[in-house]
Amino acid sequence: MIESKQNQQIRNIIKLSRQAKERKKKKVFLVEGARMFREAPKEQIVKVYATQNFYQNNKPLFDGIAFELVSDKVFKEISDTVTPQGVLAVIRQKQWKLEELVNHGECPFLLILENLQDPGNLGTILRTGEGAGITGVIMSKDTVDIYNPKVIRSTMGSVYRVPFTYVEDLKDVMKLLKEHHITSYAAHLKGENVYERDFRSACAFLIGNEGNGLTDEISTMAEQYIKIPMCGKLESLNAAIAAAVLMYETRRQRL
Amino acid sequence: MIESKQNQQIRNIIKLSRQAKERKKKKVFLVEGARMFREAPKEQIVKVYATQNFYQNNKPLFDGIAFELVSDKVFKEISDTVTPQGVLAVIRQKQWKLEELVNHGECPFLLILENLQDPGNLGTILRTGEGAGITGVIMSKDTVDIYNPKVIRSTMGSVYRVPFTYVEDLKDVMKLLKEHHITSYAAHLKGENVYERDFRSACAFLIGNEGNGLTDEISTMAEQYIKIPMCGKLESLNAAIAAAVLMYETRRQRL
Repeated sequence: MIESKQNQQIRNIIKLSRQAKERKKKKVFLVEGARMFREAPKEQIVKVYATQNFYQNNKPLFDGIAFELVSDKVFKEISDTVTPQGVLAVIRQKQWKLEELVNHGECPFLLILENLQDPGNLGTILRTGEGAGITGVIMSKDTVDIYNPKVIRSTMGSVYRVPFTYVEDLKDVMKLLKEHHITSYAAHLKGENVYERDFRSACAFLIGNEGNGLTDEISTMAEQYIKIPMCGKLESLNAAIAAAVLMYETRRQRL
Repeated sequence: MIESKQNQQIRNIIKLSRQAKERKKKKVFLVEGARMFREAPKEQIVKVYATQNFYQNNKPLFDGIAFELVSDKVFKEISDTVTPQGVLAVIRQKQWKLEELVNHGECPFLLILENLQDPGNLGTILRTGEGAGITGVIMSKDTVDIYNPKVIRSTMGSVYRVPFTYVEDLKDVMKLLKEHHITSYAAHLKGENVYERDFRSACAFLIGNEGNGLTDEISTMAEQYIKIPMCGKLESLNAAIAAAVLMYETRRQRL
């Protein structure tokens, strides 16, 4: 049992938890809690760290898995939550290629995120996306790190199942979408009411930064402008909410 | 100009910022930033605190309003944000009666929240609700305080415009809804697909606690069970997202 936070493995975990750079270098990320551990694809689990108590109560989950017991005190050090459940796993990152996302066999249903910054928003978008049946998420490289522990937590496991990738330049993606006959939609004040559009064929929705929206550079490359109808004096919806309304309207139309 | 954080007014503001009890006692709440100040109904503004800099650049906004200048250093003490904009206002709470919300002249479109705990979720629900055109929000008394600064911030001004009230006992509300022929809908695994329901007449959607959902006590009192269709392995949507999907489906049907 690891009882010191000076232990090299523990120090590595703390680094992985805090530094996106370190996660990128090692090509892994951390997940916490029974649910995230249980739902993790076995082949992606690198190593699991658990308290004695969690291990005793969940022995079958550890079958064939490399793990290490740590003291309650040390677990508190590596945990990102106020009331730790006693299990944390190092998971191998899964890499999707942009081409796979765009060449999706059935009808592509993509989200394109530009410079999204709020970890909760990104996690919630992934979670909602799984529910609505999206086929992938493409993010500009300045979008918040999807392996940030706060993002991971709010995905509720969707991070294992929704294909995603980061790209150097969204402009190239916009061209690729055209080549593949995937209609791209950007929110715009002069856009057409979303409830008068047909989203049943291949589509991609562009969602911009929380404070500034989409850059002009990207929004002018969109094929269609759309608008979510709004009552009251409100100027805009939260990014994750706007994405949810668009994704579920698409889902409704495709039912 | 107030230059000491020991100033009694400053100490009162800090108390109002931290304690729901204090806000309730004084029947006021705090808002921060240019937008929240600009959108505040004049008759509800009790007093405004601003830095010299903000005041100089926004003099017309202060016409006929009681205000006090504070030093930058003191403003940092009362501000709830990392980069303060230099303006904070004490706003009188507006009280709506349950009867007003239920007796809404046009077609009532209500949200009933049971024990929602996340400030960001509550604020986002209010914001989305304004956009979707809801007529009111009714909350169980154990729901997070709507005047919590984090809730206020994420409402983006909707807190001034969407009618809401807290109630002692949601069971009484459920009975009142029946009496007023407002159909109540609860999310349930055995519910009917939301996209096969008609929400054009008076309706109320029940949204439960983030971790535990609705209590059995309340969900069994709902008139109809509904379900948002879900792909993948996901068990549920985030509370604010589920509310958004239901509210915008209603909005779509009523367009």
